Amino acid sequence: MKIASIQSKVSESKERTLLHIWDLFEASVPDDTDLAVLPEMFQCPYETALFPVYAEPEGGPTWRFCSELARKHRLYLSAGTMPELADGKVYNTAYVFDREGRQIAKYRKMHLFDIDIKGGQYFRESDTLTAGDEIVVFDTEFGEMGICICYDMRFPELSGRMVDAGAKVILCPAAFNMTTGPLHWELMFRQRAVDNQVFTIGTSTAQDPGASYQSWGHSIVADPWGRVLMEMDEGEQVAVTEIDPCVVEEVREQLPLLKHRRRDVY
Amino acid sequence: MKIASIQSKVSESKERTLLHIWDLFEASVPDDTDLAVLPEMFQCPYETALFPVYAEPEGGPTWRFCSELARKHRLYLSAGTMPELADGKVYNTAYVFDREGRQIAKYRKMHLFDIDIKGGQYFRESDTLTAGDEIVVFDTEFGEMGICICYDMRFPELSGRMVDAGAKVILCPAAFNMTTGPLHWELMFRQRAVDNQVFTIGTSTAQDPGASYQSWGHSIVADPWGRVLMEMDEGEQVAVTEIDPCVVEEVREQLPLLKHRRRDVY
Repeated sequence: MKIASIQSKVSESKERTLLHIWDLFEASVPDDTDLAVLPEMFQCPYETALFPVYAEPEGGPTWRFCSELARKHRLYLSAGTMPELADGKVYNTAYVFDREGRQIAKYRKMHLFDIDIKGGQYFRESDTLTAGDEIVVFDTEFGEMGICICYDMRFPELSGRMVDAGAKVILCPAAFNMTTGPLHWELMFRQRAVDNQVFTIGTSTAQDPGASYQSWGHSIVADPWGRVLMEMDEGEQVAVTEIDPCVVEEVREQLPLLKHRRRDVY
Repeated sequence: MKIASIQSKVSESKERTLLHIWDLFEASVPDDTDLAVLPEMFQCPYETALFPVYAEPEGGPTWRFCSELARKHRLYLSAGTMPELADGKVYNTAYVFDREGRQIAKYRKMHLFDIDIKGGQYFRESDTLTAGDEIVVFDTEFGEMGICICYDMRFPELSGRMVDAGAKVILCPAAFNMTTGPLHWELMFRQRAVDNQVFTIGTSTAQDPGASYQSWGHSIVADPWGRVLMEMDEGEQVAVTEIDPCVVEEVREQLPLLKHRRRDVY
């Protein structure tokens, strides 16, 4: 299974960003790619005030662009996230499309990033976003995958539930910052992979020195042993990683963590 | 708060091991140490067949030795683990003593290590051990601490429950092996510290080239940001680490992971 990670830049013009992503796919995503993954808020600068401005309903222009992108390249597309407008609220929403461009999953970020680190990062997503409350696992020809968004990945309970529901791969469009990125990004994707015996795929926006929010980048793929199969630096990049989802069953047989859980105690 | 980590060797003679530990304390544990931590199965070679042979009831000779060690040095002692004989069964049991040598906590390993890694480690604790089923958090003058044993630490649910019960420090006497040690030891102690915003303290036996079970060593202390404050190599060593348990509250305020958990969803 070949995965193309797209660590793309975001411009202030949504149209220019989408055209740029179209070109990136044309130029850098190989024909035999099975799954392409985009970052969190890939069509909207990461500022709480802008989420409502860039928001679109399900089926809107960005959604249709993503559907067409998946269909054109005949690949599964985890279309990062975009601000979604629904019933007057704005969600941080991830859509997944199949090779025919049909939506097969939709997930709304469940843990909003409200943080205030001394001498570091301040950010309050809840100023403009509403949290989702559904755990999402979807089926593909390579088995079941779970999806969550950035800060969600910090909560072991959520990945645990996705694995209970069958996930062998966990996708995570994200945009860690320059405080938490160096401290926790790689560590978190590795340990979630180990604890859940899954592949973890974290996809970040590229760092933009001109933006108000500095993204850490470092899009990553880790295997169920916690080994890093691919990790970028902070710049714009497309990288293809090949994984064998069958490894998940092998690892779970050799080190039966999931079987050894004490459901009678906790 | 000063913590002395004792990465001690285990000899075939229990008496010799205990005398050796007494001497280690006399020679290398400073007077102002607040907590000393011993490794898993510190008085018994790590072989399933030997656990019943070295087992003692609560209050037996090794227990009394540990109580006396704590009292003599006026420190909290996390007395690693020893095989405990109770009602004809053998448990992998951790006792904790206060500065007066009184037992203040007792924990029996809850996840037995039954593993079979291709080309790597084979081990079945359940051949001779019985699993415990109680989560343990105990109070000290430095706040509440949780304790679990080696393989237990792989289960995020257990550390989550200890933190729910108030733990700010998680102690883990352990003995990872030469397969899982290099892959997962440091990663696991760091990420458990980050997820739970606690200090994690992993204490291993020293590696013994002559033993049937090769311990990875690398006793470790990690802070709530996941930074490694101390990590040994594989040899016998005593190291003192100073920690400030107040940091736990600071970190939990800046990055409110525990508050952000979605108990309504999972």
